[in-house]
Amino acid sequence: MMTPEFNLIETFFNRQIPHTDLGIGDDAALISVTGGLQLAVSTDMLVSGIHFLKDADPYSIGWKSLAVNVSDMAAMGALPKWITLAIALPAIDEQWLEAFSNGFFACADAFNIALIGGDTTRGPLTISVTIMGELPKNQALTRAGALDEDDIWVSGTLGSAALGLAYLQGKTNLDESARTVPLNALHQPNPRVRLGLALRGIASSCIDISDGLIADLGHILKESNVGAYLRYEALPVIDLIQSRLQDPLIQQCVLAGGDDYELCFTAPKNQRNTIISLSQELETPITLIGKTTLLPELVVYYHDKILTQTSQGFDHFA
Amino acid sequence: MMTPEFNLIETFFNRQIPHTDLGIGDDAALISVTGGLQLAVSTDMLVSGIHFLKDADPYSIGWKSLAVNVSDMAAMGALPKWITLAIALPAIDEQWLEAFSNGFFACADAFNIALIGGDTTRGPLTISVTIMGELPKNQALTRAGALDEDDIWVSGTLGSAALGLAYLQGKTNLDESARTVPLNALHQPNPRVRLGLALRGIASSCIDISDGLIADLGHILKESNVGAYLRYEALPVIDLIQSRLQDPLIQQCVLAGGDDYELCFTAPKNQRNTIISLSQELETPITLIGKTTLLPELVVYYHDKILTQTSQGFDHFA
Repeated sequence: MMTPEFNLIETFFNRQIPHTDLGIGDDAALISVTGGLQLAVSTDMLVSGIHFLKDADPYSIGWKSLAVNVSDMAAMGALPKWITLAIALPAIDEQWLEAFSNGFFACADAFNIALIGGDTTRGPLTISVTIMGELPKNQALTRAGALDEDDIWVSGTLGSAALGLAYLQGKTNLDESARTVPLNALHQPNPRVRLGLALRGIASSCIDISDGLIADLGHILKESNVGAYLRYEALPVIDLIQSRLQDPLIQQCVLAGGDDYELCFTAPKNQRNTIISLSQELETPITLIGKTTLLPELVVYYHDKILTQTSQGFDHFA
Repeated sequence: MMTPEFNLIETFFNRQIPHTDLGIGDDAALISVTGGLQLAVSTDMLVSGIHFLKDADPYSIGWKSLAVNVSDMAAMGALPKWITLAIALPAIDEQWLEAFSNGFFACADAFNIALIGGDTTRGPLTISVTIMGELPKNQALTRAGALDEDDIWVSGTLGSAALGLAYLQGKTNLDESARTVPLNALHQPNPRVRLGLALRGIASSCIDISDGLIADLGHILKESNVGAYLRYEALPVIDLIQSRLQDPLIQQCVLAGGDDYELCFTAPKNQRNTIISLSQELETPITLIGKTTLLPELVVYYHDKILTQTSQGFDHFA
């Protein structure tokens, strides 16, 4: 389904690839899944103007369109290995394509992932990635395993990517020195693959934060049939955000911002020391942010007052 | 990466599915590849106004967006088993979605394929499907195995889908009774999965005809480093086309039309009887249309005159 004038896969996307029997260039790629392992498969579509700004840097779009899929593998405790990329482009822009593919392969190389299939076509800028990873059977980190009184943990910091987006949208001002971290979090998220792998057998449930803490933790709670409470002031954030915790925009960024691609997971209390050791070993901050409860609601406290409380669906930040 | 208002996967796409460990609803689906088999993976993106007409029937779009991917599995000699679907929609149109999903699942059910991953988002209508199938190692039908003096075969008939498209585009008129077959070929192609599976060990190369006979056979010739000659008047076509063989539009449809999703394959001459038996057994027309040659060009004869001749790339119908 590739029109000749858009046969750009050869030029920009056909590079040497690891662990693949037959790569790009035939009707399908061929791969061999390691004996006895399960395959984890996930797909995401990114549309210009919806998932990234129309004038976004193509290198960052390339990095991010793969990184958000890698993050889904991390959230399952799977080792990402293969991806396919379908991309619609309004016109051939070689400069854009070169920067995009450089960003895409920078992320692919960072995680040793093979691009095994591609399709390019004319159309409004749209990127669709399907990722495949491996994991031992019955060890996947799903959303459905949290029990009452489990600890709730989150990796890294929250809200930085959303703050970067708010700055780009003119919703807040940031000094030049203060922009770097939020913009980098927005443009080049670092999915927590090593942490996801290490959490197999430790976490009772896990999700990556793409739509915001409340929405994504909400998925865990719904699938696990439990509730939870969090302390807003205990959430891990960068200093800039820490100094503005009372700002409603900041609260929105931290609780509902999304795009952080950190892992949020639950674990029984007896795993606490193991998780703290893991944090040191992986040099990855992991913060205890709350507990699950039997009451089917998510309550966020801020200095002992209720900041927000959601019951069904957990989709909206009220 | 799913905005809440577009969380339509549950409603329209989460059905009971075969051979899958964990389906839609978590960060990834989980599948188990049959021990010792290879996985064939292919991806295609369809854009409204490019790959289908803007006012096309959503049931047909649903059927076809899966069928074109199933056809890639057929062309590899793989058994299609799993698919992911990412779809961008300008707005929620439940009637459109229901018809689309009905067409999509009609094709999925016809081939016993499981939809294991989905993403819906706002955006210009774009459909991206990734398909996975299984096959024994070292038995894939690639484009690169044709040898000199191999027979060239094609399944079914050629040019019908392109004729249907030409009618819809107002390029030719068709009586009401004459429209059904071409329009059905265009809207609901039937990928040749059983034939692809049966050709393992028999065909020396294989491709599905999505971009037209000359372009797709050209891929085989290029990858196999051979040439070929064909006889235009020997190509299998429906009666309507047979009666108009001299019409340049018909010649274009038959040789360069695409969208037929028939298999074009090569095989050594000593497989001729096997292939004829196969044709009867599968009740699928398979026609001998030409031979490969050492000369690196593709020559199409029409009653002993050269109708068209292409040398490098084979991309264009001159």
